[in-house]
Amino acid sequence: MKALEEYLKKNRTQHLNELTKFLQIPSVSALSEHKEDVRAAAKWIEQSLNDTGLDKVCILETGGHPVVYGEWLHAEDKPTILIYGHYDVQPVDPIELWETPPFEPDIRDGKIFARGASDDKGQTFMHMKAIEALLKTKGKLPVNVKFLIEGEEEVGSIHLDSFVEENQELLKADVLVISDTPMLEKGRPAICTGLRGLSSIQIDVKGAKGDLHSGLYGGGVQNSVHALVQLLNSMRDEEGKILIEGFYDQVQDLLPNERKQLEELNYDEEIVKKELEVVELFGEKGYTMLERTWVRPTLEINGIYGGFQGEGVKTVIPSEAHAKITCRLVPDQDPDQIATLIENHIEKNKPAGVTITTTRFDSGKPFAAPVENEAFKIAANAYEKVYNVPVAFTRMGGSIPVVETFDRILKMPIILMGFGLPTENFHAPNEHFHLENFDKGLLTICHFLEDVNQISAKK
Amino acid sequence: MKALEEYLKKNRTQHLNELTKFLQIPSVSALSEHKEDVRAAAKWIEQSLNDTGLDKVCILETGGHPVVYGEWLHAEDKPTILIYGHYDVQPVDPIELWETPPFEPDIRDGKIFARGASDDKGQTFMHMKAIEALLKTKGKLPVNVKFLIEGEEEVGSIHLDSFVEENQELLKADVLVISDTPMLEKGRPAICTGLRGLSSIQIDVKGAKGDLHSGLYGGGVQNSVHALVQLLNSMRDEEGKILIEGFYDQVQDLLPNERKQLEELNYDEEIVKKELEVVELFGEKGYTMLERTWVRPTLEINGIYGGFQGEGVKTVIPSEAHAKITCRLVPDQDPDQIATLIENHIEKNKPAGVTITTTRFDSGKPFAAPVENEAFKIAANAYEKVYNVPVAFTRMGGSIPVVETFDRILKMPIILMGFGLPTENFHAPNEHFHLENFDKGLLTICHFLEDVNQISAKK
Repeated sequence: MKALEEYLKKNRTQHLNELTKFLQIPSVSALSEHKEDVRAAAKWIEQSLNDTGLDKVCILETGGHPVVYGEWLHAEDKPTILIYGHYDVQPVDPIELWETPPFEPDIRDGKIFARGASDDKGQTFMHMKAIEALLKTKGKLPVNVKFLIEGEEEVGSIHLDSFVEENQELLKADVLVISDTPMLEKGRPAICTGLRGLSSIQIDVKGAKGDLHSGLYGGGVQNSVHALVQLLNSMRDEEGKILIEGFYDQVQDLLPNERKQLEELNYDEEIVKKELEVVELFGEKGYTMLERTWVRPTLEINGIYGGFQGEGVKTVIPSEAHAKITCRLVPDQDPDQIATLIENHIEKNKPAGVTITTTRFDSGKPFAAPVENEAFKIAANAYEKVYNVPVAFTRMGGSIPVVETFDRILKMPIILMGFGLPTENFHAPNEHFHLENFDKGLLTICHFLEDVNQISAKK
Repeated sequence: MKALEEYLKKNRTQHLNELTKFLQIPSVSALSEHKEDVRAAAKWIEQSLNDTGLDKVCILETGGHPVVYGEWLHAEDKPTILIYGHYDVQPVDPIELWETPPFEPDIRDGKIFARGASDDKGQTFMHMKAIEALLKTKGKLPVNVKFLIEGEEEVGSIHLDSFVEENQELLKADVLVISDTPMLEKGRPAICTGLRGLSSIQIDVKGAKGDLHSGLYGGGVQNSVHALVQLLNSMRDEEGKILIEGFYDQVQDLLPNERKQLEELNYDEEIVKKELEVVELFGEKGYTMLERTWVRPTLEINGIYGGFQGEGVKTVIPSEAHAKITCRLVPDQDPDQIATLIENHIEKNKPAGVTITTTRFDSGKPFAAPVENEAFKIAANAYEKVYNVPVAFTRMGGSIPVVETFDRILKMPIILMGFGLPTENFHAPNEHFHLENFDKGLLTICHFLEDVNQISAKK
């Protein structure tokens, strides 16, 4: 490991320069105007994997943004590790809240600030550089490796399902590794053993044919914003409990030992409260913050808009009002069924005087990992060797829809070993990545790849 | 009247060309970037009044957008008519819904389309041209005339109160005429005898320090949009009744004969429903559409915004949410008191986990006219001479805050004789003005000025 550590140290500036180039590409998958940028990011990876010396590196079309594939399969009789990551990023608005521009990476206070720094370009890049370091210092890898890096994770991996379905032979491996989840907190690495699923829907309310003068018509016709407010308010009570009929029916109750495990993580709610600068934490009665964010489902309004948004006042009755809603789901909720329950709720609670339409967006099933697998212990040890503390086995409130797809189709252990921190503003302004975890993470990945060659390879 | 009719006919194209120039000036008083445009509109009027031959024409400063004054006082022993109008206009968004650009006036189907065409540049312009026609055809006016044209009507006439207070001698007159209200419908002229007042407030909700990832924190902290939705929903019931404590306390009940008068207008709710393209009309139980829009108070959300508004989905918990609210008030509600009641309601119903701030904007007191005055009858006759139908005495749901100021300080009859139609999209995209009422209105104003010289003049 010494040569490896030296290699990483010597090449650190070079690696950060490369990462900077990668982060400069505005590969926002949700916005059609960035379509070419998304492809540019795919090409950047293709070039980088080629430079590292991987085989069969190629950009594969999916019907949407492409995936990048690359492999190194010269470790005979050794297991094969499939590494998944994504090169697309979230939109950047509200842009005015960024201290430095989202696509002009800036290193300050030991962190690199840019959209995608942590989610997920930075973490994907680490795997690429760990492979490079192993190849350069040893001339070969301890295991076989396949890369699958996609460009639609932030839009629900819409085309990856069928891609995985159609490429099962190409993607065949013994373990799947993904670094797209956070550590528990600074200095406390975590392997994530469960992810929430996702269901999302847009609600569009239409009243009169156009905005009306609130003097002439006020009191006489329905106001689309009032109608939307009424409808949205019917979905959640004042304590955060979701009122959609049947919403909690499939939710697995927390077992006493699961509660105890969560308790033992000593998660400090006061620290979170201060970090987020909220007057108080908030949510479903009878559950801790960790329970609410890891093992309980949610319904959140992600955006609302209608009528006048400018300076001062405009006395209109808005003709249209819109809301975007996503639910985070837990085992055994089904995203399609939840979307149907919401649609039923809207139908039943439709306010008077308006028409309402809904559109479903991304969805993803919740996931729970089989933690008793040997590869999990090896990953945990790799962390412990570098961070000198035991790994926390956590669940995560977020969703990586494709994880459930991999689980269902490829049927191999999936290890979610992340290096981000929950405070690194994924999906928000000033996203960043701690370089401490960039350095330690590279080493951890190398240790893992070295040690995981003990497990038996599929025939 | 024959020479006059001929003059108007001969000069119609010239008049419409002038109006087009006036409408081309984007004098949006609410938006600071249009400050110079607002002043340009004032200068345009100054020039036009000078060209017509009025005396003492000048732009007077107010601390905000200026007023334009001009007079013709050579009708000895005759009454003096003060004509009020405004040259500022509403903002134009949503701009994409305009069929032709708001500041490129377009005449089609007998209507002139532009922001301000009806509210109130078009109607103000008619008074200027009626005076021109009388002066050109007769060499003098039948009465004394003063013009007071302001530039802040659409932002609550914020500086006109003190201007009127300080210039009572300058503005001294026997009758005040304002054309800024709609007719009952096509072919049915109306004099408005009551206006609703206005109270307006912005609500700003702040949760966490920034937008949060809905996977990581969803269910754990308050969502500012949910909080705002909950708060707004507590203000109105599902049938449109306002739930702010004390909101209706000062509202005068409708007397049976008032109800009867409104009924006799034969207002056709089915036609309105079709015109507005709503699935149904909506509002407070037990009142007709006319009652709800003319004599009942309202609370309307004019705009709401928070979180993601782009294409697709962004899984954030919005940090901020905002709403703009205006109330239309009826006698004897007081705008400041209503704003206080709303603030108290917000304080009492504050959702958990967020901080809330409020900002008051424009306000205006409700108004009721003394219809038994002789000048009212003369105005009604003038309409009847041109339109050949009796005038409807209506109330209006809209607010012209300065009317209450004039009433209180100047103490003279105020005649609201409008020429717009309720369907002309004031404050909305595709505002327009029917040229039929431009032509008939010019004649009506001339008749009124001829006939009103019978009333006795103040000493």
